[in-house]
Amino acid sequence: MPVPKSVRWHDGRLWLLDQRALPDVVSEIELHDAGEVAVAIRDLVVRGAPAIGIAAAYGMALAWRAGEDLDSAAKTLLAARPTAVNLAWAVRRMLAVGANGGDLVEEARTIHAEDAAMCRAIGRHGGHLIAPDANLLTHCNAGALAVSELGTATAPMYLAHERGVPFHVFVDETRPVLQGARLTAWELGAAGIDCTLICDGAAAHLMGLGQVDLVIVGTDRVTANGDVVNKIGTRALAIAAKWHDVPFYVACPASTFDSATPTGADVAIEERGAEELTASIPVPAQVRVRNPAFDVTPAELVTGYITDRGLFDDATGFDQGGV
Amino acid sequence: MPVPKSVRWHDGRLWLLDQRALPDVVSEIELHDAGEVAVAIRDLVVRGAPAIGIAAAYGMALAWRAGEDLDSAAKTLLAARPTAVNLAWAVRRMLAVGANGGDLVEEARTIHAEDAAMCRAIGRHGGHLIAPDANLLTHCNAGALAVSELGTATAPMYLAHERGVPFHVFVDETRPVLQGARLTAWELGAAGIDCTLICDGAAAHLMGLGQVDLVIVGTDRVTANGDVVNKIGTRALAIAAKWHDVPFYVACPASTFDSATPTGADVAIEERGAEELTASIPVPAQVRVRNPAFDVTPAELVTGYITDRGLFDDATGFDQGGV
Repeated sequence: MPVPKSVRWHDGRLWLLDQRALPDVVSEIELHDAGEVAVAIRDLVVRGAPAIGIAAAYGMALAWRAGEDLDSAAKTLLAARPTAVNLAWAVRRMLAVGANGGDLVEEARTIHAEDAAMCRAIGRHGGHLIAPDANLLTHCNAGALAVSELGTATAPMYLAHERGVPFHVFVDETRPVLQGARLTAWELGAAGIDCTLICDGAAAHLMGLGQVDLVIVGTDRVTANGDVVNKIGTRALAIAAKWHDVPFYVACPASTFDSATPTGADVAIEERGAEELTASIPVPAQVRVRNPAFDVTPAELVTGYITDRGLFDDATGFDQGGV
Repeated sequence: MPVPKSVRWHDGRLWLLDQRALPDVVSEIELHDAGEVAVAIRDLVVRGAPAIGIAAAYGMALAWRAGEDLDSAAKTLLAARPTAVNLAWAVRRMLAVGANGGDLVEEARTIHAEDAAMCRAIGRHGGHLIAPDANLLTHCNAGALAVSELGTATAPMYLAHERGVPFHVFVDETRPVLQGARLTAWELGAAGIDCTLICDGAAAHLMGLGQVDLVIVGTDRVTANGDVVNKIGTRALAIAAKWHDVPFYVACPASTFDSATPTGADVAIEERGAEELTASIPVPAQVRVRNPAFDVTPAELVTGYITDRGLFDDATGFDQGGV
């Protein structure tokens, strides 16, 4: 079964794969205006930094085609996921093209096509890291469902698999929203890649047994000093990888690099609702819940950054492209 | 609301609180023979190393009172949870008393009463570690529900709370079985202790923010070199604590010390069924599942052991008691 597309533009209409219903139900939702796109981004119909950027670009295109105020549409979209730098990047690009009288539908389609090419480039630059019979580990979903094609953290895996390299992937289930169990295990399994689901707390145990050779994760934002903002649990994983001398790689497009933010400490971490933890297990009223959606992995814990512009061992590599 | 007792012997009958149904349903199950006790231990009706030992002792007492073969009952009980050293310890003690013609009902009640005294001693030896306004973090349930009274990891908390010391506890939800969310948050909340539920992956994030002053966990077994066998996720937590210079304490009765096993590497780690991960999120058939129930925390990551015989900074402390 081929992996469905997270964002689809067809005959002038925008469709998003509803990732909240996976893996039980595979269904698409049509979005008619920027407000609907913003709600879909906020409610995790679409998630993953690049896919959010693409969806937001189409949201701007829908507003432009309907003759709506672009600044207002931009504001609505930017408020949907404050942590996602790709969202801001795509919206700003669309605003600039709009200000110059450009065609925003064409611009959104260009962003979409660039993203597909970007994934393939990440796969090319990171594929050689996967030795035959390697055991990989990944967290959350930085997969094909998060972007337009091949994913970011998964792109080296898909290209190695295409070349016939045998390897195996441990997939963190990734509490509380279980993107690993619902999305990554599903898409890797569908692509025929050998994978094993584990609970997040088991990663350090498997590293201790020498059963993990390489960690590859995605990221929502890399700050100027190389700190990595990614799904909650990534920091713990990176610390465990360091302690066990397991290489820890971050895969992302160069557009994820945020040179305007000095360090991870300067990033506001989104706190989400308690119901993500308490939906299955109701807790007594007197028990509070903290649900930070992201954490910061210090640059010193990152072995390398796998990007569409090359494999860099520190954040200065991003600057070479002049993002 | 007072916390119910995990094991209750009343008028010559044995009742276990069914911890699988918590926190939604508070119900007790009556057990009539050693085989039923073994099934209850295996199916997690009762869990937590000391409570398992107490339940197994009563299981032996039921077999003795019914005139059944004690060796056969012991074998059945020992097979229920191979990792739990307290189970083996309690069963061996009952066998020895039985071989000398002793009263096994009285012996089980003695083990039960010793456990209550043990909890209080752990609380006394660890209570001073909790400074006013401290933020603690715990994993799984080494609480009152795991033993007969006060718990192990929670005993210092209950005694500090009794003394009026203000403090706060972050509770790891503890995937996959969610003992933290279902049991620890419930019993601490019921006792009026200020606590906050988090997903396991958020612990390192909170440590990075300087919001965790102290970690206290329980253990199923401490090996001769001080390695700690405990619920999956403990190793990752201990590594994160070390990286952030957060003290990491292990609370347990001295009976948890297994001098016959040299290191954690010599302990067979129980692997449990895939359904603990996939009950809420079904995964495609081609995706495998690994579900190790425990992991090993190396002794070098343990700041100290809070026991009923005192607070030790390494495993040689256990030997002083001649366990």
